[in-house]
Amino acid sequence: MKVLVIGAAGMVGRKLLEQVAASPDVLGGDIDALTLVDVIEPTAPEALASVASCKAIDLSTDGAAASLIAGRPDLIFHLAAVVSGEAEADFEKGYRVNLDGGRALLEAIRQEGQSAPYRPRLVFASSVAVLGAPFPEKIGDEFFATPLTSYGTQKAIMELLLADYARRGFLDGIGIRLPTICVRPGKPNAAASGFFSNIIREPLSGKEAVLPVDDSVRHWFVSPRSAVGFFTHAATLDLSKVGPRCNLIMPGLSATVAEQIAALETVAGSKAVSLIRREPDPVIEGIVGSWARDFDPKRALELGFTAEDDFEEIIRIHIDDELDGKIGA
Amino acid sequence: MKVLVIGAAGMVGRKLLEQVAASPDVLGGDIDALTLVDVIEPTAPEALASVASCKAIDLSTDGAAASLIAGRPDLIFHLAAVVSGEAEADFEKGYRVNLDGGRALLEAIRQEGQSAPYRPRLVFASSVAVLGAPFPEKIGDEFFATPLTSYGTQKAIMELLLADYARRGFLDGIGIRLPTICVRPGKPNAAASGFFSNIIREPLSGKEAVLPVDDSVRHWFVSPRSAVGFFTHAATLDLSKVGPRCNLIMPGLSATVAEQIAALETVAGSKAVSLIRREPDPVIEGIVGSWARDFDPKRALELGFTAEDDFEEIIRIHIDDELDGKIGA
Repeated sequence: MKVLVIGAAGMVGRKLLEQVAASPDVLGGDIDALTLVDVIEPTAPEALASVASCKAIDLSTDGAAASLIAGRPDLIFHLAAVVSGEAEADFEKGYRVNLDGGRALLEAIRQEGQSAPYRPRLVFASSVAVLGAPFPEKIGDEFFATPLTSYGTQKAIMELLLADYARRGFLDGIGIRLPTICVRPGKPNAAASGFFSNIIREPLSGKEAVLPVDDSVRHWFVSPRSAVGFFTHAATLDLSKVGPRCNLIMPGLSATVAEQIAALETVAGSKAVSLIRREPDPVIEGIVGSWARDFDPKRALELGFTAEDDFEEIIRIHIDDELDGKIGA
Repeated sequence: MKVLVIGAAGMVGRKLLEQVAASPDVLGGDIDALTLVDVIEPTAPEALASVASCKAIDLSTDGAAASLIAGRPDLIFHLAAVVSGEAEADFEKGYRVNLDGGRALLEAIRQEGQSAPYRPRLVFASSVAVLGAPFPEKIGDEFFATPLTSYGTQKAIMELLLADYARRGFLDGIGIRLPTICVRPGKPNAAASGFFSNIIREPLSGKEAVLPVDDSVRHWFVSPRSAVGFFTHAATLDLSKVGPRCNLIMPGLSATVAEQIAALETVAGSKAVSLIRREPDPVIEGIVGSWARDFDPKRALELGFTAEDDFEEIIRIHIDDELDGKIGA
């Protein structure tokens, strides 16, 4: 099997590759060739080095998509994107990368199939940002996509294209609407959603973290481990069970900040909790207030996608996967 | 006021222009310049000839959109589209005209606004084809767009782009999801939906019409007169009342074929009804079976859009507007 990962240097891409390295058959077959692509050259895990080729390619440049598809990969993960804040700040870049780049990939697949039959599976990383407030208490699978960011718009358009290209038989497509990934490894970042991870990750390492919103704020979470599980499951799922509505809200955990903090106390004690400093930020409160709080992802659950049931589990996964099972101090 | 109508040679475009000619202030101001565009050169109604310029332009060709927007129209109607059947038969043409052409228009507007402030109103003809079966009994405003045709996909993508360009302040946008227009004037056509109009229009002129589906088939209708009313209302509506969810399901009438025929009998007698010949066509029954049957278009009704309450009214409008008030025989 030939596998192509676009966006392989990002957090989800790297964790997906670690998972493939650890369980080589997780994608449903032996991997003969693995092409890893990102705007900066990605790195292959050592266990995959013999089959991997790593390339620095911007999908939105002329001919880039066709060059990647010429090798006829059987399975493609499209994880690459300009993130929400950047797509909002730079309108043209967001559309070029998130829409034109993705569409170029779909077109390259369609055109490759015109010379000889070709129908790869394409697993696309979408986002709950395709939805826009106001929301019902729990958002169902059939709620409409009215994004309130350019990033969400670009993801929603890609979902529509993916479904149409799949319906026409050019590819087998499935779109994964990711919850907010938590606990995000690495350093605190400036993303408006960053604090949801910061207030867990930093105290677990004995460091202070700033909480800019009220404890009552509710949000929708998944661990990095489960997020990777969405992609491996999507790679092997019988798509005849999915049908034409192929862009799915993924399972997740709805939790308030207070519930996050209570879970941190249970797992790491009150000393960790005391490292959270409350600094209300009306701008961030405003942004976060327009985000989805809870979902009823019936279809994904029926299709076998799984996520965490409580926030303690999300914290323990972080401790296992990022901290070698040890809490710092 | 400068007005641009793209798709001015189509049925809705021509009827819109007739309405503007009859009530010059229906668009909310005096018209100083009226540019009419289509792939074939449109004709201006005589009353508008002094301000009109008519052009044969394909919006999807390089530079076409920019040339139209260079005149800085205040109000733009974008009605042009490759129709459903053709967009399905010719994948590339459908995307080129319905998506790339429309996006070029949005981009031309955005770029025109970069030299000096410019924020026209853009009224976009969308379609209930953005939705895809299975449907609830009545489809609400918040039901998701999962089109089952490339045409519906292209319209859904344009809706998303329109909303994002409006949100970013590049234009004032509103999308009109049209019901099936009935009674369509002109000759019987090969469209799968054609019979809904044929079985009324032809008998009213003493001609036979073929009914390929069962009398129990239910569908969602609006008269050409009300459809034009949607566009003139959208041209003058206070868009602050519409907000970011600017693509609206329009009001219409849900009626079965049996109800259509009963209305024909009331208006034109049993002789007209006897001209309907039943010739079941499983292919057409299959296509029509996947179409929406009924809606609950709360938002459009609250915003003052109106349509017919019963099918007799739809027939009488056809007799008034197309047959000079007289039923043939």
